[in-house]
Amino acid sequence: MTSHDEAVAAVGQVLRYLEERNGVRFDPEVLENTPTRWIAFLETATQGMRAKEPTAVQFELTDGGTVQLSDVVFHSLCEHHLLPFFGTASVEYRPRGFVVGISALVHIVEHHARRLQLQERMTRDIAYAIAVATGSDEVKVKIDAEHLCMSMRGVAKPGVRVTTQACASGVSPIDRDENQ
Amino acid sequence: MTSHDEAVAAVGQVLRYLEERNGVRFDPEVLENTPTRWIAFLETATQGMRAKEPTAVQFELTDGGTVQLSDVVFHSLCEHHLLPFFGTASVEYRPRGFVVGISALVHIVEHHARRLQLQERMTRDIAYAIAVATGSDEVKVKIDAEHLCMSMRGVAKPGVRVTTQACASGVSPIDRDENQ
Amino acid sequence: MTSHDEAVAAVGQVLRYLEERNGVRFDPEVLENTPTRWIAFLETATQGMRAKEPTAVQFELTDGGTVQLSDVVFHSLCEHHLLPFFGTASVEYRPRGFVVGISALVHIVEHHARRLQLQERMTRDIAYAIAVATGSDEVKVKIDAEHLCMSMRGVAKPGVRVTTQACASGVSPIDRDENQ
Amino acid sequence: MTSHDEAVAAVGQVLRYLEERNGVRFDPEVLENTPTRWIAFLETATQGMRAKEPTAVQFELTDGGTVQLSDVVFHSLCEHHLLPFFGTASVEYRPRGFVVGISALVHIVEHHARRLQLQERMTRDIAYAIAVATGSDEVKVKIDAEHLCMSMRGVAKPGVRVTTQACASGVSPIDRDENQ
Amino acid sequence: MTSHDEAVAAVGQVLRYLEERNGVRFDPEVLENTPTRWIAFLETATQGMRAKEPTAVQFELTDGGTVQLSDVVFHSLCEHHLLPFFGTASVEYRPRGFVVGISALVHIVEHHARRLQLQERMTRDIAYAIAVATGSDEVKVKIDAEHLCMSMRGVAKPGVRVTTQACASGVSPIDRDENQ
Amino acid sequence: MTSHDEAVAAVGQVLRYLEERNGVRFDPEVLENTPTRWIAFLETATQGMRAKEPTAVQFELTDGGTVQLSDVVFHSLCEHHLLPFFGTASVEYRPRGFVVGISALVHIVEHHARRLQLQERMTRDIAYAIAVATGSDEVKVKIDAEHLCMSMRGVAKPGVRVTTQACASGVSPIDRDENQ
Amino acid sequence: MTSHDEAVAAVGQVLRYLEERNGVRFDPEVLENTPTRWIAFLETATQGMRAKEPTAVQFELTDGGTVQLSDVVFHSLCEHHLLPFFGTASVEYRPRGFVVGISALVHIVEHHARRLQLQERMTRDIAYAIAVATGSDEVKVKIDAEHLCMSMRGVAKPGVRVTTQACASGVSPIDRDENQ
Amino acid sequence: MTSHDEAVAAVGQVLRYLEERNGVRFDPEVLENTPTRWIAFLETATQGMRAKEPTAVQFELTDGGTVQLSDVVFHSLCEHHLLPFFGTASVEYRPRGFVVGISALVHIVEHHARRLQLQERMTRDIAYAIAVATGSDEVKVKIDAEHLCMSMRGVAKPGVRVTTQACASGVSPIDRDENQ
Amino acid sequence: MTSHDEAVAAVGQVLRYLEERNGVRFDPEVLENTPTRWIAFLETATQGMRAKEPTAVQFELTDGGTVQLSDVVFHSLCEHHLLPFFGTASVEYRPRGFVVGISALVHIVEHHARRLQLQERMTRDIAYAIAVATGSDEVKVKIDAEHLCMSMRGVAKPGVRVTTQACASGVSPIDRDENQ
Amino acid sequence: MTSHDEAVAAVGQVLRYLEERNGVRFDPEVLENTPTRWIAFLETATQGMRAKEPTAVQFELTDGGTVQLSDVVFHSLCEHHLLPFFGTASVEYRPRGFVVGISALVHIVEHHARRLQLQERMTRDIAYAIAVATGSDEVKVKIDAEHLCMSMRGVAKPGVRVTTQACASGVSPIDRDENQ
Repeated sequence: MTSHDEAVAAVGQVLRYLEERNGVRFDPEVLENTPTRWIAFLETATQGMRAKEPTAVQFELTDGGTVQLSDVVFHSLCEHHLLPFFGTASVEYRPRGFVVGISALVHIVEHHARRLQLQERMTRDIAYAIAVATGSDEVKVKIDAEHLCMSMRGVAKPGVRVTTQACASGVSPIDRDENQ
Repeated sequence: MTSHDEAVAAVGQVLRYLEERNGVRFDPEVLENTPTRWIAFLETATQGMRAKEPTAVQFELTDGGTVQLSDVVFHSLCEHHLLPFFGTASVEYRPRGFVVGISALVHIVEHHARRLQLQERMTRDIAYAIAVATGSDEVKVKIDAEHLCMSMRGVAKPGVRVTTQACASGVSPIDRDENQ
Repeated sequence: MTSHDEAVAAVGQVLRYLEERNGVRFDPEVLENTPTRWIAFLETATQGMRAKEPTAVQFELTDGGTVQLSDVVFHSLCEHHLLPFFGTASVEYRPRGFVVGISALVHIVEHHARRLQLQERMTRDIAYAIAVATGSDEVKVKIDAEHLCMSMRGVAKPGVRVTTQACASGVSPIDRDENQ
Repeated sequence: MTSHDEAVAAVGQVLRYLEERNGVRFDPEVLENTPTRWIAFLETATQGMRAKEPTAVQFELTDGGTVQLSDVVFHSLCEHHLLPFFGTASVEYRPRGFVVGISALVHIVEHHARRLQLQERMTRDIAYAIAVATGSDEVKVKIDAEHLCMSMRGVAKPGVRVTTQACASGVSPIDRDENQ
Repeated sequence: MTSHDEAVAAVGQVLRYLEERNGVRFDPEVLENTPTRWIAFLETATQGMRAKEPTAVQFELTDGGTVQLSDVVFHSLCEHHLLPFFGTASVEYRPRGFVVGISALVHIVEHHARRLQLQERMTRDIAYAIAVATGSDEVKVKIDAEHLCMSMRGVAKPGVRVTTQACASGVSPIDRDENQ
Repeated sequence: MTSHDEAVAAVGQVLRYLEERNGVRFDPEVLENTPTRWIAFLETATQGMRAKEPTAVQFELTDGGTVQLSDVVFHSLCEHHLLPFFGTASVEYRPRGFVVGISALVHIVEHHARRLQLQERMTRDIAYAIAVATGSDEVKVKIDAEHLCMSMRGVAKPGVRVTTQACASGVSPIDRDENQ
Repeated sequence: MTSHDEAVAAVGQVLRYLEERNGVRFDPEVLENTPTRWIAFLETATQGMRAKEPTAVQFELTDGGTVQLSDVVFHSLCEHHLLPFFGTASVEYRPRGFVVGISALVHIVEHHARRLQLQERMTRDIAYAIAVATGSDEVKVKIDAEHLCMSMRGVAKPGVRVTTQACASGVSPIDRDENQ
Repeated sequence: MTSHDEAVAAVGQVLRYLEERNGVRFDPEVLENTPTRWIAFLETATQGMRAKEPTAVQFELTDGGTVQLSDVVFHSLCEHHLLPFFGTASVEYRPRGFVVGISALVHIVEHHARRLQLQERMTRDIAYAIAVATGSDEVKVKIDAEHLCMSMRGVAKPGVRVTTQACASGVSPIDRDENQ
Repeated sequence: MTSHDEAVAAVGQVLRYLEERNGVRFDPEVLENTPTRWIAFLETATQGMRAKEPTAVQFELTDGGTVQLSDVVFHSLCEHHLLPFFGTASVEYRPRGFVVGISALVHIVEHHARRLQLQERMTRDIAYAIAVATGSDEVKVKIDAEHLCMSMRGVAKPGVRVTTQACASGVSPIDRDENQ
Repeated sequence: MTSHDEAVAAVGQVLRYLEERNGVRFDPEVLENTPTRWIAFLETATQGMRAKEPTAVQFELTDGGTVQLSDVVFHSLCEHHLLPFFGTASVEYRPRGFVVGISALVHIVEHHARRLQLQERMTRDIAYAIAVATGSDEVKVKIDAEHLCMSMRGVAKPGVRVTTQACASGVSPIDRDENQ
């Protein structure tokens, strides 16, 4: 088991390794406070992992057409490189007798973005969660993102746009658990 | 002193802390390889700290007008949060009897971006370095960036554009060392 | 029963609560006149609730193709937060032997926007009303809006675009009443 | 003195007035919970009034050029109509020997937006606050906003852009208090 | 029967009514010449009513694909308010053995715009006329316009875009006359 | 003196002249109601002539920077052709100790647009009126418009943009009256 | 002296030369009518040469600010290649006690475009003509054009934009004649 | 038969006709050299008429997907008015076992543009030629152009966009000759 | 066999040929170092030819929707003219039970761009390689490029956009080898 | 001395070196013809070196304002890497008593682009050449380019824009020769 203080201390070790590797001395303020700040960042960036799936208030409405939210800005953290990826999500569903509060849909996006994540899995899981929350047969999710693990390292190609799409339909919470 | 393996092990501790904090289990592949990948990323992202200031080939040219490079994409790492900031740099100088290879100007930008950095200091240091390399009396640097430390945490305002500008003029290497 | 003056007085109480909650004193002009202005705003913003459904003049025209109005700016008031949502509506129908005055279509949009409202219901009700006014088998309505209840509170995500669509076809006034 | 519950009850009176004024019955969920939600919104929207002016960490830097933050999205509340106005702020200063954390500048904008406000006063007060925080001789603030009090009522002109600008220079906290 | 001079005199009466209604005196030049200018404008704006349907030169061409003209700017006059509406027309046809001079298609648009008009009827009549001129089975017309009767009066919504579409196919001049 | 009914009858004469001129018969609905509608339009379009100059509420504010409103959409009526011109106005002033309600500035633009007008005079008169209302030394007005008298008749050049600018400074109501 | 029929016959000779040069036979309709059409085009394209300089109505206005017309589309004919050049003109003047009808300014542009022309001379002559018509001390003309003589032959560079600017000031008709 | 010199002399006659028609004297340089320049232009503009259809190198490639060239700028000459039309062509084909050099496709466009031409015929003939060169079953050609014969004369509508499309499929050279 | 030094010497011969052909003397630095630099460039530009096909890490994921990478900037070298072509690639696949690391897809694009190449073949080979790496039944590749061999020589048409598309489906490595 | 055939043979050696370096075999067509094509390209790309400075026809014109050509697309060849750089040039001068044919200015740009070149020197030399051709005191040249030597090798930063500017003034041909 690792305590918060041990985690902070571990980041301090990483900084000292960078000092040695590069033959430099960091500013004392950096050495003293950056580890705490980075651990706090990680806690914020993973808060979706310890929160419960958001619930959605329901409002009865027959003939509800379709509902789409787009340009939902999100930031997530790539589980393979601990590096951010970020962009916009678009979610859409066709109501069956009731609509849900539109904020709930944004909370679902946030819930799945705030964790160590894979964009493809995040897309699918948001689709599942909206299908559960709305009971809808037609759910579509599309996510456009830039990944810093491709911009700042490796292939070093800034500007690549990664677009993932997923649909979900009539899934029940039980089906969903078995799929994961 | 911290060795490479100790740095990797320290990141592993951070991951275990996140598991406990969030009550989750990460994928074994993540636990095994992500620490190594993140340390490798940090080494890449700080390579400007251990490299020598780039040198610039000189080509004689009288009446050389002005030379500007813009849309130079860069990625750097904020020293207070270990989080990326990135954007574009524009650099400009007025030659005095000779021009320098344009690639050298881009190398100077990279050299100062690839480190734990502060955008304001990076802007000023690039201006100094170009003044030294070109001997020019008129050097202007402008950097536009987005900082993830404002988008993913804290004030949580994605989309804020930070623009810094600096000039340099006729500095010698000696003046510069004293200023740093 | 609440009179106009009682409603104004109630808003005054809310302002005094804000003074206490925040430990400030508002300007006397604000305390004296803002409650009256806000009640007047609410009366304007809900005037669609007390007006009759707009009527449409009819002009005979065979083979009328399709008619679409887009970029119809509207402002409405979210019934759950008393906060504005606003954007543009697009309405379209295929005439059956006669066309209606185009202003009538805009009046219908206004009629359903000027009330405490839900965007999904507003979209559907505009489609119903146009189907009644035109007798058309093919009515399509699309509404794009930004909701301040997502920008200024709660998820705090400015810039999310909410798009709702609905169709209506051959509905009579009787069918419509039963559906609501 | 007005308690929280009295404020909520007062909003309930306003809703009942609207029912009578318009001859309608609101949904029970609206009658029950909307007053609480609107009071909670007002508390959020005025939290800058009860918070302390944000403090800014200082980092030494000679020859710091200029620093500008733009596209800072904000939402505020017009004190004359209790209606939102919102847009973007741009702030700029020329450092004198040290720079401040860029997040602090955004916190200052938020601090002055989260209150019953007048755009012209907000612009000036942000300029003052940045001059105090940075000690700079050259501070410029520019705010672009749309006011719902012009879009949804009164002149009913959606799309009018209100741009205010203010400068501040070398003010001390004392000068500032006297000016307010 | 009304002569030209009587028509001019009638507009003079309208101006005098406006003087009385508003309690002002117009400039003598306005009183003297504006009526003549406005009658001349009406004659220009309705010249399509007294002209013959434009004829189209034919050029033989097998396998002629499709031909489309777009961005054809037009101005017309709403017959209900004597107010202009204007925008762009797009016309398309699939030739059957011959093509027609492209100018003829623009003349047809002008011919139906230069009259007291209804946008829906104008769209249909242009489609009919092109079907007659080209003998084509596939004619499509689309018109996008802004109507000053919605911008300057009534619902007072500037910026609404009205889009009408019509098709025509194999119509003979005889069919057309019966449909009108 | 011309009564409202005489004015309506005069427009009827104009329509009958157009019937004779073009050899057509208008729809009975047009003959019966269009004259009334057009007179009603003229009354709306000239209501600024019979209204009083809008008054502006004043709010004390030292160091008020500059205040600009742009993208103020307006429609006016050219006094030489009775044809609309329309576009956007931008107004700006530097406050001297107090600011005025921003709606008042828009009301001033409307006041001078709603009349038989000349764009150059309208621009100057708005500048004068704002100088009077604000007591400011620095008032700037800029108006961009399209004139249908150039698009639909005469030179027949749609798309020409007419831009007029005027400044005003420290004028008193007395100076202004003498200048007109 | 060359009559109209001789000019048409001369164009017929040119067509026959092209038949021989290229070893082809043109369509009889082309041989018969194209010469007449091209001569008619030249007469239209040079009609500014035989027309009188447009006159401008004057309207008294003190403090008239500045007046600018932009996006005035024009087509002219390059005198060296008989090939079209075309683009947009922008004209601006500062009135001295009176303004002129805005259509007059467009007529002046047309007057100088409709001739065998040189863009630089056309720009200057429009500036002169506006100075004469308005008596203004400050006249500015700017013309942006594409020249087919550079796109279709010679350097064969489509897309080159040629921008000419000229000012004029207080010129009298006499000064102007001497300059030409 | 007309020689080159006779053709040049004929253009000289046209210029003298314009002098008489307009009552002007052209510059001697214009009278002396413009006829030669215009004949040279016509020779360039019709060189596709005397050249052979371009040949295309073939490169074997199975599974070659689709190949499209777009934004191919071209200039041609309308055979009815001797006036330029110009714009962009887009050509596409699906290879059958081999691809052709992409330059060949552009040469084919040029070959059919450099002649007295009709846009509809040019579109079809390019499709035929590409079908022959590639043996492809699926060839699509789309041409967007502006015609000066509609901008500078006749309907005088600058900005009209003429779009023609044609397909070709499996044609052999023999089929093609019969269709023309 | 040609050694590296012989290749460099051969480029030197080319430079001397250009000196003679053009009657000039190049700068000594050019003569001395440009051949080495150009050979180094060719080695970089063809490194995909000597590298192994990139491998892709696999992550299990059911219901993975679709994955698309777009705006992947690439530069390649046309095998017929040794001249660069460059643009962007877009790749898409539908996962079957697992997803691959997104960087791998970019490495595959680079692998096929870094060689003497034909755009059509590169498009197809990338589709094949992704089908092999992902086992997907639905792979789509689209490449947009500009070719300097059309901009700087031959048809001399800068700005032509070449778009190639290819699909691949369920290919095994064996099928692929037979197709090449 | 190197003959054309020896230059072609030298390129063949380079190709064979690439075969060995990469362990591949090129297509026979490539081996046979690519060397000839590349030498032909170099001859085209350097033709400005063996041509005479373009001459410019002069046309008398007093008060000629300013003349600017922009968006002049050019392609040149970097003398250090034999790699293309390309973009647009803008040239401007103020005439002194005469203007020059606008094509001449484009020919001057081409003349200095078609050689082994340095962008800074090209910019200055174009300014000199225009000053000589026009005798103007005010010549400005601005060139925007992308360099493949930065996109395809070395720093590998595609998208960097290099902007150079130069002025020239009253230079005589003698001054210019001494400067070079």
